[in-house]
Amino acid sequence: MDHWILTQALGRGKAVEDRFERLTFTRLVDTVAGYPRGSVVLPDGSIVSGYPSIARVQSLAAGLRRHYSGPFWAEEKIDGFNVRIVRYGQTHYAFSRGGFVCPFSTDRLPDLMDPAVFDEDPQLVLCAEIAGPENPYLEGHPPQVAEDVALFAFDMMHRARPGFVSQDDKMRLIARYGLPATRIFGRYQPEDTEPLQQLILQLDAEGSEGLVFKGEEDGSRAKYVTGRSNVSDIALCGDQLLDLPPEYFTNRLLRLALFASENGQVGDAELERSLGRAFIAGVARAVERSREVGRVGVPFRCRFRQRRNAEHFIAHMKATGGKRIMIAEDMPRREGRYWVLEFERVLERMTGTLANTLAGASQYD
Amino acid sequence: MDHWILTQALGRGKAVEDRFERLTFTRLVDTVAGYPRGSVVLPDGSIVSGYPSIARVQSLAAGLRRHYSGPFWAEEKIDGFNVRIVRYGQTHYAFSRGGFVCPFSTDRLPDLMDPAVFDEDPQLVLCAEIAGPENPYLEGHPPQVAEDVALFAFDMMHRARPGFVSQDDKMRLIARYGLPATRIFGRYQPEDTEPLQQLILQLDAEGSEGLVFKGEEDGSRAKYVTGRSNVSDIALCGDQLLDLPPEYFTNRLLRLALFASENGQVGDAELERSLGRAFIAGVARAVERSREVGRVGVPFRCRFRQRRNAEHFIAHMKATGGKRIMIAEDMPRREGRYWVLEFERVLERMTGTLANTLAGASQYD
Repeated sequence: MDHWILTQALGRGKAVEDRFERLTFTRLVDTVAGYPRGSVVLPDGSIVSGYPSIARVQSLAAGLRRHYSGPFWAEEKIDGFNVRIVRYGQTHYAFSRGGFVCPFSTDRLPDLMDPAVFDEDPQLVLCAEIAGPENPYLEGHPPQVAEDVALFAFDMMHRARPGFVSQDDKMRLIARYGLPATRIFGRYQPEDTEPLQQLILQLDAEGSEGLVFKGEEDGSRAKYVTGRSNVSDIALCGDQLLDLPPEYFTNRLLRLALFASENGQVGDAELERSLGRAFIAGVARAVERSREVGRVGVPFRCRFRQRRNAEHFIAHMKATGGKRIMIAEDMPRREGRYWVLEFERVLERMTGTLANTLAGASQYD
Repeated sequence: MDHWILTQALGRGKAVEDRFERLTFTRLVDTVAGYPRGSVVLPDGSIVSGYPSIARVQSLAAGLRRHYSGPFWAEEKIDGFNVRIVRYGQTHYAFSRGGFVCPFSTDRLPDLMDPAVFDEDPQLVLCAEIAGPENPYLEGHPPQVAEDVALFAFDMMHRARPGFVSQDDKMRLIARYGLPATRIFGRYQPEDTEPLQQLILQLDAEGSEGLVFKGEEDGSRAKYVTGRSNVSDIALCGDQLLDLPPEYFTNRLLRLALFASENGQVGDAELERSLGRAFIAGVARAVERSREVGRVGVPFRCRFRQRRNAEHFIAHMKATGGKRIMIAEDMPRREGRYWVLEFERVLERMTGTLANTLAGASQYD
């Protein structure tokens, strides 16, 4: 990026200088010169572009017709967190969506992928989802990751030019370097509603989150989730009923009903029961927790290879989460060849409201 | 009310002059001299006090202990709308919670109760819930009202003095004049958690909305609803998912989970299914409606004895609901001895969002 533009962006608060160990870099906190928030400028001036927001389609047939006029690819959407992985010098870094170095992902990269792909092109940016029950950010995880975390590559970018690497090149590199990647279901046309509907119903039954579509020509992306992924989200977050924006729940209910309506699932007793259970069990879990310990929180557990990365992560959590993050004094704790970190994100509104309510407080509404 | 205080309140916009046919009156839109919003000052200076907000208790045992130190009465809470009925001159009027004359309730009073109680005390204010499938305000109704509407007296006030008429006097007048009234279950002590829990579970199974408690000494009121009343509300309003404040849903989910948790209903398959069905069927109903007519709305139907009251009602709806109220040209329509009014309250956000979504629009979230 042009030095003058960057200096101006820093002056206007649209970019921030940051550092992780020996790497100093600039993180965009707003769009600058066409690069979105979360883009990273490395010391050599090369740019790791921010990963763009993806449009969400809520009606399959109508959405595809409106979004695409030519062929597109359908890939699995993974319920994890998005990182962009780069090699700089001899070191690999994983940047979060916001453009921070993620100490957890960076630490675990050697366990998750072979970095040989960067030998072929050191300027490559690998976009991947990191997902699994032992991740430090999200409550949910895909059913195929039974323990710890796994990495799913799904896109590639390049530090020397904007835009995504083409689907063909991406598929070739994934195959050649044996990169763990999201499932690619194939190439479709906008009128292929029927096979895509069959596909999404299969994913719905498997417990998968859904699909991401990628236009072959312009690379434009769109996502479409399964009905049951909404139920899973609600089941995981029911105890956060008052701490998440209420639209978290209403948006998912709307998507679920649209999906059920488009796929003949309205009246499905098992679906109804699972949604009801998601809410009642989730909120009741918070009520029980409030009765037992006077506090409601979400527990997290993850493991690090290196103690100092766990400490970087703790410092980041404390800086951004403040009092809401509870970490025991003895963390991280050595377990086998890993440093395990367990912590709890306290749900302040549920904690406060349930404590008052269970003490008999009344409310006016 | 002191003339000077009233004049000052009018000047400050805390009171508004209003009229219904030949009755001119003043409606409080804010607290004035201790009288709450919705209080009405009649031409003779007498006051129909606003009906106070009732505190909601969400945990039965803890709530009762905190609210009451002496005996209280438990009565049924009716899912209807609150009116205060007075005789002024030779005419009876029903005032809404906000202090408007309700043309519907006023019109139907002769069908709903015998006004002989006002012969004994013309200054009496009768507080009643009007409820039933043919009411013009609410989607829900109590199971015991199968058609049209019914009136349930539950409190009495007096134009000459503040506060409620005592429970004994109220019960005596209800009995003597055969007034239709809410069920009075009895007199309890704060430690009577056990029988009240049995009672609320019986009401829960019956489909009743819940209980209102009334302190014998100070008259302080508190309400406590059944778990299933929350499910009923959600089932009726699922198609208003985006038009109601999202807290409408999250508050009910919290109450339901608390009720289930306190009454051993967590994991109850029938309850889970009914909650899931409430959401999915409700929102899917809106989706179907959007597909069929491009609009989502709530239909209402009610009947009037006198055509001019239906017209007063229509004028009030149009003034307060604007474009959201759709009334066919031929309304009100004569049916037997009544004038029937059918109208629809259009749900603007659901209408707009579903129209866009079903046309394939995407969203960023």
